[in-house]
Amino acid sequence: MRVVLALGGNALLHRGERPDAEPQRRNVVQAVASLAPLTRAHELVITHGNGPQVGVLAMESAADTSLSRPFPLDPLGAETQGLIGYWLAQGLGNALPGRRVIALLTQCVVDAADPAFGRPTKFVGPTYDEADARALAAERSWVVAPDGQKWRRVVASPEPRRVVEVEVVRLLVEAGVVVVCAGGGGVPVVETPLGLEGVEAVIDKDLTSALLAEALGADALLLLTDVDGVETDFGRPGSAVIRSTTPAEMRARSFPTGSMGPKVEAACRFVERTGGVASIGSLTDAAGVLAGMAGTRISAPTTG
Amino acid sequence: MRVVLALGGNALLHRGERPDAEPQRRNVVQAVASLAPLTRAHELVITHGNGPQVGVLAMESAADTSLSRPFPLDPLGAETQGLIGYWLAQGLGNALPGRRVIALLTQCVVDAADPAFGRPTKFVGPTYDEADARALAAERSWVVAPDGQKWRRVVASPEPRRVVEVEVVRLLVEAGVVVVCAGGGGVPVVETPLGLEGVEAVIDKDLTSALLAEALGADALLLLTDVDGVETDFGRPGSAVIRSTTPAEMRARSFPTGSMGPKVEAACRFVERTGGVASIGSLTDAAGVLAGMAGTRISAPTTG
Repeated sequence: MRVVLALGGNALLHRGERPDAEPQRRNVVQAVASLAPLTRAHELVITHGNGPQVGVLAMESAADTSLSRPFPLDPLGAETQGLIGYWLAQGLGNALPGRRVIALLTQCVVDAADPAFGRPTKFVGPTYDEADARALAAERSWVVAPDGQKWRRVVASPEPRRVVEVEVVRLLVEAGVVVVCAGGGGVPVVETPLGLEGVEAVIDKDLTSALLAEALGADALLLLTDVDGVETDFGRPGSAVIRSTTPAEMRARSFPTGSMGPKVEAACRFVERTGGVASIGSLTDAAGVLAGMAGTRISAPTTG
Repeated sequence: MRVVLALGGNALLHRGERPDAEPQRRNVVQAVASLAPLTRAHELVITHGNGPQVGVLAMESAADTSLSRPFPLDPLGAETQGLIGYWLAQGLGNALPGRRVIALLTQCVVDAADPAFGRPTKFVGPTYDEADARALAAERSWVVAPDGQKWRRVVASPEPRRVVEVEVVRLLVEAGVVVVCAGGGGVPVVETPLGLEGVEAVIDKDLTSALLAEALGADALLLLTDVDGVETDFGRPGSAVIRSTTPAEMRARSFPTGSMGPKVEAACRFVERTGGVASIGSLTDAAGVLAGMAGTRISAPTTG
């Protein structure tokens, strides 16, 4: 089977941990131990989030007085792909002696006319007092918004349209290489008359993973995180993990927009467009999730 | 022809420029304009330096109070590979419509017993007063040394032994993909019983490029920088660019250890080990340097 597997941010940084290098490297070693069995049996493409890491780099860049202005989000996202790609490729390579593993820098095209650019929703970077936030917004053409008691920059999260490097990913997967790519959803770029150009946005990594899985003709899409699966009524008494369902049943429910919502949307899209299977479950039992023994399995309804 | 082409740090950041994102992105667009003609005619692998970029990230990480300790050099180097790989891959992709371009995260094995670890020579990161430098050295097991009036951390620059991802590079080059890799000489790693592990060092990117060129069976190694070529007596009256020479002639001369020395050493090694041609010259005339019309061309002596 060809499997696209998306790792949540918690694969690298557990809740409450400081964003130091060492715990992240250690967590990666744990995470790949769960993935290694899959990699022996299947063609594997691994994608990953970058939220905490891009937040750290955005904050550091904003505080760097040697710069005239902080780095935009596209080079910062590229830095996190190098960072996390290094840890994952090294960890997987160590867990799979003799198997070739590579991390690729990945861009993802978004539409410059995407309505998301008109209503930015994703907080990025450090917090500010309102006055400072407004001053920075004026100086740097940022949009800022209140985040609790403080203010932060908000950026758009447009729809991923095309993974630029998909044909190279396909070539490598078909040659038996384990590919780490599409980190943070891919560096967001728009098409211009001069070619591709980075844009200040963030892309949902699960939606990009679904797009990538579709383009690669993958049989399965695994969205791995730190919960056992999708629950019927998250946080309420009597809530239970949904074991097996269809996109139509999932679309009839509602899920938290910030966390599980995009995962469910990504899984449904993949199943609807390809007839493949999408699963959402715990990183600690990747093999069980793929086998349908754990997690939430979403597949097309059986007909007839 | 198969060509490995190493870009000096000046390809991204011209002398005296601030390390902002925008000038670097603009400089990359200029640099790739010089490389695009080569790419149309030859198989091309592009490597690059990362000195100024890793310096910025090391300084930012050292100043980040959300961290218990600054990031080690291996993840910082990986970040610069993502950053510069993104700019180069995007710039080359735009300059070469229809051609596939990819940036790969690259590790380079060094020997844990390399004598360089006993005498670190490369300055990295911010400057400190002597007392602060010594305190940090004690706390973080750093070696520090005076750099002019201030003190800085110094790290080892061991010999590159093996580019971990070389077989993936070969596979892609043979499929017609332009590959950007080995940024900053590759992330330095050592072999341990548990596999590869990052190490606090920097690797000379020209030496790694020579090793990569040899492993790939390249016909030519181009080391491109901001000078016209190797001079007979750099900085002295009457000095002239050497046009065509042999490794033996070059080894009989002496060159500045910090800048031209490693380039000459890398070029000589490639020619001695492979019989190929190595050239050192200006990035602004890459095609002329490859054709032997510009720069310093080092090749095996004609026999007979």
